[in-house]
Amino acid sequence: MERTLAAELTAVPAGSTARVQGWLHRRRTLANITFVVLRDRTGLAQVVVKDPATIAEVARFGEETVLEVTGIVSPNPSAPMGVEILDPVLQPLSEPAQTPPVELWRPNLTAGLPTLLDHAPVTLRHPRSKAAWQLASASMAGFREALAGNGFTEISTPKLVGASTESGANVFTVDYFGRPAYLAQSPQLYKQILVGVFERVFEVGPVFRAEPHDTVRHIAEYVSLDAELGFIRDHRDVLTVLRTALAGMVQSVAAQAPTAVELLDVRLPEVPEEIPVVHFADALRLVGAPEDEPDLAPEHERALSAWAWEEHRSEFLAVEGYPMRKRPFYTHPQPDDPRWSNSFDLLFRGLELTTGGQRLHRYAAYRAALAASGQDEASYAWYLQAFRHGMPPHGGFAIGLERWVARLVEAANIRQVRLFPRDLHRLAP
Amino acid sequence: MERTLAAELTAVPAGSTARVQGWLHRRRTLANITFVVLRDRTGLAQVVVKDPATIAEVARFGEETVLEVTGIVSPNPSAPMGVEILDPVLQPLSEPAQTPPVELWRPNLTAGLPTLLDHAPVTLRHPRSKAAWQLASASMAGFREALAGNGFTEISTPKLVGASTESGANVFTVDYFGRPAYLAQSPQLYKQILVGVFERVFEVGPVFRAEPHDTVRHIAEYVSLDAELGFIRDHRDVLTVLRTALAGMVQSVAAQAPTAVELLDVRLPEVPEEIPVVHFADALRLVGAPEDEPDLAPEHERALSAWAWEEHRSEFLAVEGYPMRKRPFYTHPQPDDPRWSNSFDLLFRGLELTTGGQRLHRYAAYRAALAASGQDEASYAWYLQAFRHGMPPHGGFAIGLERWVARLVEAANIRQVRLFPRDLHRLAP
Repeated sequence: MERTLAAELTAVPAGSTARVQGWLHRRRTLANITFVVLRDRTGLAQVVVKDPATIAEVARFGEETVLEVTGIVSPNPSAPMGVEILDPVLQPLSEPAQTPPVELWRPNLTAGLPTLLDHAPVTLRHPRSKAAWQLASASMAGFREALAGNGFTEISTPKLVGASTESGANVFTVDYFGRPAYLAQSPQLYKQILVGVFERVFEVGPVFRAEPHDTVRHIAEYVSLDAELGFIRDHRDVLTVLRTALAGMVQSVAAQAPTAVELLDVRLPEVPEEIPVVHFADALRLVGAPEDEPDLAPEHERALSAWAWEEHRSEFLAVEGYPMRKRPFYTHPQPDDPRWSNSFDLLFRGLELTTGGQRLHRYAAYRAALAASGQDEASYAWYLQAFRHGMPPHGGFAIGLERWVARLVEAANIRQVRLFPRDLHRLAP
Repeated sequence: MERTLAAELTAVPAGSTARVQGWLHRRRTLANITFVVLRDRTGLAQVVVKDPATIAEVARFGEETVLEVTGIVSPNPSAPMGVEILDPVLQPLSEPAQTPPVELWRPNLTAGLPTLLDHAPVTLRHPRSKAAWQLASASMAGFREALAGNGFTEISTPKLVGASTESGANVFTVDYFGRPAYLAQSPQLYKQILVGVFERVFEVGPVFRAEPHDTVRHIAEYVSLDAELGFIRDHRDVLTVLRTALAGMVQSVAAQAPTAVELLDVRLPEVPEEIPVVHFADALRLVGAPEDEPDLAPEHERALSAWAWEEHRSEFLAVEGYPMRKRPFYTHPQPDDPRWSNSFDLLFRGLELTTGGQRLHRYAAYRAALAASGQDEASYAWYLQAFRHGMPPHGGFAIGLERWVARLVEAANIRQVRLFPRDLHRLAP
């Protein structure tokens, strides 16, 4: 007999026999009856056990035992799916499971984060943990679909790199056949090179930061949603594509993960047709910060988000023109005033979500920028080939997947939305 | 004026003005006329220059200079797109490019592989190099689409792992905040754990092998297309999903990369509704190998592929039942004869493309298997949690993306189809 998924049970004619398979999510034992709730990837199925021999059998199975249950489908409006299974025959598919470290059947996991992470192979099975990752999964799909639909080519760039190029700090060193290599902190330099090949590229892949600070917002490995495109006028064209990507992500989450959205009570943002933009200098004035401030403080970001909502009814705000001295060497200056840059931060609900902008594209400009930043041109020779041989005006952005999901579910700690987070202290499971 | 892509030029009414942007792919200089071929992401556009001042200008631009060309669209059946651009006004978007290390306008790149790889930022721009990656890109999309459409959840598992679990050899060591970590050789153990969470999972991501041998088939970093699913009967259910994934990849390549298929003269395989299966013991007999042979030699794989074509008109053949002693500890034995395994290799056009199979799912079976293989159970404690707390019968497979593309284009060396390959000697660009 074929398996029926929990969510499909309502479509089974009442009185007919069905077979479900899943994890023993919960048992409730009354005087002469035991209710078994079975969990599969689509939801929960209630099974009513009255036969004394089967009741005894169920008593031997711990929660999380994998079972196959064959029985009669019967409507019951108070059961999870509106139906329940009567007169069940139970067939265990694993040995009886040991008692889980936390009670997965409770609506919320109340254990502390270290316990949840230590036991991730089991605690991720909780419907709320699963749901958080389903938002991530749907977001990746939406990102790709939006960009592939706009002429972008998916790329895969090396994570093992020969020079800790972008910034010397926070980089992991690898023993590469006896010599040092480094783990890529971002696909930045490679995605630029590949604009020279495909014009428009994106990558969804891991990036690595040897972040020595133990904060709720940083992990050592995360998924970066990267895009880069050529033949732009300036960073505003990049912002337009970022808007398209975000709208695709939101739409995909709504379409592919509605159950997760509902369970986690996620309020999905509306991505405005045009994301409002404020210049960094004006942003400082708006929040009453000194005009020589090199960066926005967290309270400034919150105040600006509040302002964008008041002024534009937008939960997104782009702050453009960040001071050049705070941006990496490949940043394109603002043509009319080189103190500022053609780059932006995107604020979402009071926090920076993304950084993007226009890059330099002329060979001479790179040589000057590297010299000005005191870096050795020779160690970038592999990268500079692209510019020596013709590159169009281009730019791009990167969205941290886990940061995005953390904002959606208002997670207190980014570790809650990564499947197996890595940090200063944690390397397992 | 908006940009028109090369492939869109045929839709522009003859005699109207259009603007194209791209790389100066080729110049041909006759007595009073210069032909400029511009390359963009969609193809080539021919520009006819007759004005002496513009001819002089073109002479200053090297190949690969990025140009914007505005002119009159005129039909010409012998031009690349059936049209050409007359009376052009040229606007350089980069400084004049330096002469490329190879002539990109020639139909084939004849330089040796080391030269091509050293200059990858430029040589990847060649239409044939680009096309090879377009097959890879379309394959990834097709893999995901096929699995997402069958109830699979996309996952992202850590590449930084605490123990060099799957096999001690060929693993890269990372300095992880002062202690050793390792780069994941595959998502195997994590994808199994996540079957306990999502039942059906897939991942497209980098894997790392510290392969000390310099061969044409091995690179140190490649893209693995991984899938794993629960509630299977045995490895034959895994093969069915693998068939679905391959069919999706082929279909996606045909639909999304037809130009690349044509340019590289790729003969796309037909994936049969049911992939033929032969048992390892029978395979040995078929090729006349001794019955205690533990593996198939390359000439055996070729002979078996030829047999599958003769017998089944299939370019794919699954060889099931590989000897247990050659398979990793988590392999499920063949129930009626534990010398053999419930695993398979998939042969495609004479070479092994993929390995897959059923895994152990009972906690006791893992403890016995680890003990039998002389491994320390404690170092797998994080992984064994999943089995202690109930796992269904499950299995999966992994396809090496670059190996797949190499077969499609009949590449002599797998490095030809990876964007920036890594090997024993190469860590840049």
